[in-house]
Amino acid sequence: MAKQVFIAVIGVGGVGKVFLSQLAALAKRRPSPQLVLCYASTATKTVYHDDYSPIDMAAVVDELQTGSKGAPPPLPKIADYLAGAPSKVILVDNTSAQDIADSYPLFLSRGISIVTPNKKAFSGSYKLWQDIFSAAASSGVKVYHESSVGAGLPVISTLKDLVETGDEVVKIEGVFSGTMSFLFNSFAPTEGKGGKWSDEVKKAKQLGFTEPDPRDDLNGLDVARKLTILARLSGLEVESPTSFPVQSLIPKELESAASGAEFLEKLSQFDSQMEDVKNAAEKEGKVVRFVGSIDVPSKQVKVGLQKFDRSHPIAALKGSDNIISFYTKRYGANPLIVQGAGAGGEVTAMGVTSDLLKVLSQIS
Amino acid sequence: MAKQVFIAVIGVGGVGKVFLSQLAALAKRRPSPQLVLCYASTATKTVYHDDYSPIDMAAVVDELQTGSKGAPPPLPKIADYLAGAPSKVILVDNTSAQDIADSYPLFLSRGISIVTPNKKAFSGSYKLWQDIFSAAASSGVKVYHESSVGAGLPVISTLKDLVETGDEVVKIEGVFSGTMSFLFNSFAPTEGKGGKWSDEVKKAKQLGFTEPDPRDDLNGLDVARKLTILARLSGLEVESPTSFPVQSLIPKELESAASGAEFLEKLSQFDSQMEDVKNAAEKEGKVVRFVGSIDVPSKQVKVGLQKFDRSHPIAALKGSDNIISFYTKRYGANPLIVQGAGAGGEVTAMGVTSDLLKVLSQIS
Repeated sequence: MAKQVFIAVIGVGGVGKVFLSQLAALAKRRPSPQLVLCYASTATKTVYHDDYSPIDMAAVVDELQTGSKGAPPPLPKIADYLAGAPSKVILVDNTSAQDIADSYPLFLSRGISIVTPNKKAFSGSYKLWQDIFSAAASSGVKVYHESSVGAGLPVISTLKDLVETGDEVVKIEGVFSGTMSFLFNSFAPTEGKGGKWSDEVKKAKQLGFTEPDPRDDLNGLDVARKLTILARLSGLEVESPTSFPVQSLIPKELESAASGAEFLEKLSQFDSQMEDVKNAAEKEGKVVRFVGSIDVPSKQVKVGLQKFDRSHPIAALKGSDNIISFYTKRYGANPLIVQGAGAGGEVTAMGVTSDLLKVLSQIS
Repeated sequence: MAKQVFIAVIGVGGVGKVFLSQLAALAKRRPSPQLVLCYASTATKTVYHDDYSPIDMAAVVDELQTGSKGAPPPLPKIADYLAGAPSKVILVDNTSAQDIADSYPLFLSRGISIVTPNKKAFSGSYKLWQDIFSAAASSGVKVYHESSVGAGLPVISTLKDLVETGDEVVKIEGVFSGTMSFLFNSFAPTEGKGGKWSDEVKKAKQLGFTEPDPRDDLNGLDVARKLTILARLSGLEVESPTSFPVQSLIPKELESAASGAEFLEKLSQFDSQMEDVKNAAEKEGKVVRFVGSIDVPSKQVKVGLQKFDRSHPIAALKGSDNIISFYTKRYGANPLIVQGAGAGGEVTAMGVTSDLLKVLSQIS
């Protein structure tokens, strides 16, 4: 059993900071193997020691300010440094950066395991997906990414368990975006009237439930990325998150708005479009929700608006919760359902920490 | 990496047979490590070879009929045999036998990992619980029991992830029995009238949703055992499944009925009791359900009838589904929810197979 495992953390923002505090607590609770933080970086600051001596986990956020070696070295140099560590290494990528995702095959081929909430690696090109998992397989290291879908909710682990034990996934359906969940639970509640669409978007933005530019949520791409990951784990060779139908909720006329602020200002001019959608659903006694679905036998993946009975679990969702329903051969007509908060620093970091524990149990 | 892992299977009934077919399929799909079935037994029949040569997984059910060595040897002899295998061993206990559960510390101390759906080991005395996990820790082997609660649903793995990553469980609440779920979803549906209590119990028995004697479901002990397991994983030192309040749905007068058949025959005489309960809930616009709950800060565990709003997820359950809600510090007011079939051979065996894969990834 390895006595030490080295941990490198890229990205010390919202998720990264919480992860570091969970890591510090974990290292205290579990003395063996000893977890050694040997590298940490933000986009502009870096801390590491040439002799791999431990960085204080509790103080690293300060040390990035006071003891930084400047911007991080190029990724291949980081891989060199980590590959030279005197024991096994786990890289924790808490960014959403495409260039770091693109370098996963390099890190994995150098014997470095990876845990990450970064969706880009698993929802980019199908070639990158293949390169990642073949690099991990040939060097016998691990790559885990629970928080890339539904944050800490057991979504990816559950899907893997179903597939690896020989169940056949028939359909996956759900609400995969906390932002979309919040917007539609307020705009088209199962009881009561709901607000105007543009008002709900503004409210969500004020509450911090949207990206800085809300169009980055409303274009559906975030949900499409998550669907891409789940579809691939279900056995479908989805080429990219833009290779299947994704409904954007950005009015055509506002796609080119110069800023999120301008977009928000003009959005109320288009409220009647969403009002029509809501009313059409109400006429059938239903409510509208923004969902993603994967039909495995017909290989159909799609993201967009759909109507649901008010008693349907997807309609009855609360707050900004996600819900993911797995219809499989074994589970039959009633799906296996996982539900709860699918965004937020604490629960996203929890998925990362939980993945780290899984890797530790296998490599140490 | 170990080239072979030896598998011993005790119990080849409903779950055991499905597990063996899942195991055979798994062994075909994953050539490394080679899975070698080296022992299988029912209560009266046994198959194994002194030289540990493989038993044909696909033919073992027949071989137990034709090539049996008779009743299984005493458990310490089985432990001797398995401890002598030329590579690592996983014991799969598909029984619900107390004597086998009692011998887990022995098997674990001999270096044999265990996966099992057997609730008895984890819901018996607190001393047995401690002996099991300290034996596993000191010999560095694994013990997994996902299917002891909610069959293949990710209940135990989710709770462990929450606790191990440092979250604090505040409350666990849910419907933990497929039988109770079916009975109350039919007896007190959210829409419509529902049948008479005794009729619903008879129907459940006919559909195979109850134990041979339905009192074994209605006494609440099965749910109490599951709650004991989850409470212990949440950090409470629950002494036994009878050390907290458990409401039995068996009328006092029928506790001593000579048989399940006599019980069923006389049950209708007591229908007014359950009808009163249903009506009391209806007066508040609610429905009654049989639930278990664990309140961690106050250390209160209880099992029994409780009223829920018709829109509550526990009220809206379908068929014989289970639902388990985890309220934690990180997840806040909206719990993490897992829902789906919590009984049945296929999904119970799936939990066992999934546990087997987890042990394999750690020991091979």
